[in-house]
Amino acid sequence: MRINSLTSAANSLLKKIRSLQERNARHKAGLFLIEGEKILLEALARGVEVEAVVLETDYFQKGISKVLEDALANEETFPESINLAPPNLFKDLITTTTSCGLVAAARPRTTALETVLDRAGSTPGPRRLVILEGVQDPGNLGSIMRSALAFDACGLILSRGTVDPYNPKVVRSAMGALFDLPVVVDADLSTALPAIKAAGFAVCSLNPEAAETLTDKNLPDKLALLLGNEGAGLTAEADALADFDLKIAINPQIESLNVSIAAAVVLFHLANVAKRS
Amino acid sequence: MRINSLTSAANSLLKKIRSLQERNARHKAGLFLIEGEKILLEALARGVEVEAVVLETDYFQKGISKVLEDALANEETFPESINLAPPNLFKDLITTTTSCGLVAAARPRTTALETVLDRAGSTPGPRRLVILEGVQDPGNLGSIMRSALAFDACGLILSRGTVDPYNPKVVRSAMGALFDLPVVVDADLSTALPAIKAAGFAVCSLNPEAAETLTDKNLPDKLALLLGNEGAGLTAEADALADFDLKIAINPQIESLNVSIAAAVVLFHLANVAKRS
Repeated sequence: MRINSLTSAANSLLKKIRSLQERNARHKAGLFLIEGEKILLEALARGVEVEAVVLETDYFQKGISKVLEDALANEETFPESINLAPPNLFKDLITTTTSCGLVAAARPRTTALETVLDRAGSTPGPRRLVILEGVQDPGNLGSIMRSALAFDACGLILSRGTVDPYNPKVVRSAMGALFDLPVVVDADLSTALPAIKAAGFAVCSLNPEAAETLTDKNLPDKLALLLGNEGAGLTAEADALADFDLKIAINPQIESLNVSIAAAVVLFHLANVAKRS
Repeated sequence: MRINSLTSAANSLLKKIRSLQERNARHKAGLFLIEGEKILLEALARGVEVEAVVLETDYFQKGISKVLEDALANEETFPESINLAPPNLFKDLITTTTSCGLVAAARPRTTALETVLDRAGSTPGPRRLVILEGVQDPGNLGSIMRSALAFDACGLILSRGTVDPYNPKVVRSAMGALFDLPVVVDADLSTALPAIKAAGFAVCSLNPEAAETLTDKNLPDKLALLLGNEGAGLTAEADALADFDLKIAINPQIESLNVSIAAAVVLFHLANVAKRS
């Protein structure tokens, strides 16, 4: 394992990594920020291309875990040197107050909508997609990624205007689901929704005013769940492209469920209970 | 509507409100912090005792909503004067970066475990409780409160060591559910769990290693769902007091579900689908 010591805040790698907290800089660099050993190990295990790893000097000197050492010494998945930065430089690389001792810059992997639909079409049995329009909270997106993977959705489609799936908070809260779930970004729903329907999916939107409830309805084998922004919900344009809408029965004292809770409930129900139409 | 203008950071009301960001100070003052018009209106509508309201001068001068004006002028629910503070003093009262223009200090309302169990015992039909041990994330607690209310749980029991339900972040994320749901705080689970069982509830813990899955099991009418800390899960002591454990079937690529997602899924299922034993 080759080791570089970084000593200046002006070092170009440190500057690049610091820049990855901003969406535009991530886009320009074609890189995103990984914070912490656990997420780095998941990324490496799933073949995510990791361009650089920086460890805090103290964290490294205390002795890193055997599994991390092995992963960083594996030339096949990580052919680079590792970098050490003193605490005063390292602290500017992370976005949490909880120090994690390790950051990395890695290449995003997104999927084309056609690829997701081709795969879904060529596999028998139930298929579920999640489509998000304008979801803004990184924690919600990370949580929805985990639920989508947990309940066997075959892809996640994010509209233009939805929070960046490579936002550091999403990366943290998705806890590795980001690397397993096929994610389509920057989708134009006015063309993506018709393409999804043409591929045989029924598009279902959630709507507290819907006439039918989730648990009363027989649901098709190929279902795409369409969810909107936390405050404003779906745009009328997107909602108009849904084939039908459903509500989750809730106590009327509650205005609505959080979007990540609603997504999880529907996906759980589809995966485990829902009757097929 | 009487109006006081506050002009000094040393004003005792401003000092008191600033202090409510800390748990010990909340406990000592017997007050908690409400941020924003929406949550204040929910609190007043549900009979929460509001001791003081402070509005940012600019926010007030732009003209407050008719519904807020009516609520603050209603002597029955809010007999106090309102207070105005200039932006430079008001900014220290809030815990979000999103300015909300209004804060209030209100009296917490918690419920004794006996009261929750008495009510549950005297009402026919299915009854569900949620018991949290050591849940730390305020957003998770707020979300669990909303799901508990949405899916008709009759109470929430929080162990000693669980995040304070009157933490400002919980108050924000619970979005009013805090005022509708009976909440028991600082419970000693070594005595609370036996009392809950004695009241006829079966205590069910969630455990990814459980033999039975949620959707395969017939479940009792009176069920208390026991959930543990985000990282460490349940203590062995609490887990040993559960009557049975269940898992939610998930894709093995995912280690576990977030505690607020798991709680919502189980509560939804119990409220809508689960077969009764």
